[in-house]
Formats: sequence, structure tokens, C-alpha cells
Amino acid sequence: MSADARFQEAAAALGYSFAGELKVGGNYVPALRDGDLVYVSGQVPRVGAEVVVTGRVDEQVSLGEAQRAAKVCAMRALALLQRELGTLDLVRRILRVTVYTQSSPGFTLQSEVADGASELLHFVLGEAGRHTRTSVGVAQLPKNATVELDLVAACNR
Amino acid sequence: MSADARFQEAAAALGYSFAGELKVGGNYVPALRDGDLVYVSGQVPRVGAEVVVTGRVDEQVSLGEAQRAAKVCAMRALALLQRELGTLDLVRRILRVTVYTQSSPGFTLQSEVADGASELLHFVLGEAGRHTRTSVGVAQLPKNATVELDLVAACNR
Amino acid sequence: MSADARFQEAAAALGYSFAGELKVGGNYVPALRDGDLVYVSGQVPRVGAEVVVTGRVDEQVSLGEAQRAAKVCAMRALALLQRELGTLDLVRRILRVTVYTQSSPGFTLQSEVADGASELLHFVLGEAGRHTRTSVGVAQLPKNATVELDLVAACNR
Repeated sequence: MSADARFQEAAAALGYSFAGELKVGGNYVPALRDGDLVYVSGQVPRVGAEVVVTGRVDEQVSLGEAQRAAKVCAMRALALLQRELGTLDLVRRILRVTVYTQSSPGFTLQSEVADGASELLHFVLGEAGRHTRTSVGVAQLPKNATVELDLVAACNR
Repeated sequence: MSADARFQEAAAALGYSFAGELKVGGNYVPALRDGDLVYVSGQVPRVGAEVVVTGRVDEQVSLGEAQRAAKVCAMRALALLQRELGTLDLVRRILRVTVYTQSSPGFTLQSEVADGASELLHFVLGEAGRHTRTSVGVAQLPKNATVELDLVAACNR
Repeated sequence: MSADARFQEAAAALGYSFAGELKVGGNYVPALRDGDLVYVSGQVPRVGAEVVVTGRVDEQVSLGEAQRAAKVCAMRALALLQRELGTLDLVRRILRVTVYTQSSPGFTLQSEVADGASELLHFVLGEAGRHTRTSVGVAQLPKNATVELDLVAACNR
């Protein structure tokens, strides 16, 4: 099965469509290819016009919801890679992923939140989806998003 | 008009000079070129010896002031690129920018703060200044700075 | 003296061994080489099964302890580079280091915490250890770690 087919399977499992416009503001770009690297801007769990998971993990959002948010962020990043490359089968490797979790005081399971994204990347891309990762807990995220994720990928030309 | 001339224009508009020493501590470097990539260390809105915008956005600092802080950070990063490359006209592309905003609880306009930096990079560098970006809200920044920004650029040799 | 010998000297000075398994969770990898770059995942100050420095700097942890935590994170990153490359003498340059410090409200010495890591990298690697750096203060880190550090290095093939 192609990575693109697994991407569709993951979208169906989440119950969201990642087709259509991926909104991005102002004087920056959602993704950018330079040589064989593709940089993807920080993604919040937005589907269409709506950020589907907002608030701090623990006080306002459960661990499970935050993991789902991390998966949606990862799906958006994959959708941008797919658009940039034509097909996800051209992703040679996800090199680096950073996952920011909006965290209540005392919440220390940021790695577990990020596991949602890591599992999804591995599911869609197989071995090419096994990345290095940094997970941190932050006070606030844009649009009150629960999770934000960015990544750098290497591609086959 | 050259990118260096637009840099001077942006400095004049902000009312600051970015000539002279850009202070940096210890056992690290402000910028580093490796092949055709230039990495720039995290920049706070320091001009000379002074961090010109400090405190949390919303409680202590307005959105407008924070956007100005983001512009000053971006100018410092450009000043370092200019020093590294001799001229900003050798910047092929700003690949990745991360903008950290010291945020009050409940402040969620980190992307709007970062727009200050993105606009400035686009003004000075044109199409080469259109980057991927990650904006997050953090609890604290060094020297109580309101904004910190780092970036990676690709250059023509 | 080789970089590997200086690594052992630094381990002895800290009183920890970095031999043996460096535990890492799930569907991501602790380090990954792509071309002449090595990406290292975010490291907390874990030695064996234990995170040896936890809590927020200022309220719960002193600056000195936090600097020690930063050193332990840097040692783990070096241990992973050593494992990936066979020897630290193949590190051509540490390109980029990001240091996240779990900070109490009002604590603004994140750069000074990160100096612990920068000094250690310079001690072990000499000129190759002089990197660009970003230091930020965050609300929470995984496992309540005081510091988290990630890096990207360039290596000789």
C-alpha cells in the first residue's frame, strides 16, 4: 500500500478530510523545499477553518484528546509534504519533529502527547517516518491550540 | 534596491542602529555557516547593551510593542547574516524561523506577534525572505525579553 | 587528547556513566544521520532509569543544579553522537543547540543555564563544539525534567 493510501486511511480513522486549502497567514509559507529538504511550518490541529482541539492538557483537555490533536497536526504536516512532493512516497525520511504541548502546571506527559504524532508518522510512512523528536510543554499556543508541531523531512528527488 | 539598502531603511524606520558589536556570551557563536546553510542563534530584541522590549505580552506589553520586538529580533538576525555573508544579497532563502513570545496566561496571538518578524524579513529580502515559521508562547525568556527568534538561511556561495 | 577521552573525563567530573542503553520511547529514534548531518532528539538529564534533576529553576532547583542538568543533557547528546559515528572525533561541528529550561515565573537566567551545556560541548569537542544556540524558558518539560536539549551536528564521513 502506498504512503498516500495510508494517509487516506489515517484521515478516515480520525474522521477528518485534509483535502482543500490549508490556510496560512501572511508573509511566510506553509512548506518550503530547498534541495532535498522540506521544511514544514508549525501546524496546529486545524481542520478547515476550525482548530479542533483547544486548551491546556490536564485542566481542560484529556491526554487522549491531546494525542488526537498531535495526530491532526501530523496529518496537516503530511498533507503539506504531499502537496509539495506530489506523493508521500517521495519522503525519504522525517528528520526532526518538534511537538509543543499547551500544558497545565504539573502536567509532565508531553512525550506521551507527542507519541500520537510519532505513531501516525510511522503508520503512514513506515521506516521513513521514524524521526528524531523534541517534546516540550509551553504556556500558550497560537489560537489556543492544544498542540503545535513542526518538522523537517528529506525527500528523494 | 539592494537587500542591504532595504535593511538600512528598516533600521531607520525602527529608529535603531544595528551597526557595531552584537554582544554574545560564552562558548557559543551568534551565527555559523556550514556549506550553504547559515544558522543564527536565538536573538532577543537587544540594541547595544539594552533589551528594548521586556515583559509578557498582554499584561505588561501590548501586541504592537511585541510586534516591534519581533522586528528588532529579525533585524539582529539579518545583521548577523550580513556580517557572515558580506551582503544580504547572498541570502538565497530564509528556510526556517522560530518565534518565541513571552505570553500572559490567555494570550493566544503569538502568530500575530511573529507577523512582525515575517513582514520585516519579506520587506528586506523580498521572495528570499518568505520562510517556514513556528510561533509558540513561552513562560519566560532570557533577560525578560518579550520575544526571541532564531532562524536558518540558505545562501549562494 | 581525543574527544572521546575528554568525554570520559567530563563523565567522571559529573560522577555519572553514560555507557549502556540510552532509553528512548516509541516510534521515534534518539539520533538519526542523514548525509553529513546528525539530528539528536530532545534529551532530558536522565542517567540510567532516573531523571537526575527535576523541577522548576528558582523555586525548586538552583541555577547551579540547572547548569548541571544542562551538562547531563549535553553528555547524553554526545553519547548518542558517539554511538552514531563510532567516535566523537568525527564530529565536524555542532551546528545548532536548543536548550529549554523549566522556569519559575520571574526567572530570566535561561542563557546562564544553557551555558552549562555550551561549556561542556566546547570542553569535549574544542572548536567543533562551538555552536549556535537558542535558550528559552518553558512551563513544563517531560518527566518534570529541569532542562531539555536537542542538537544538530555535522560530521566528517
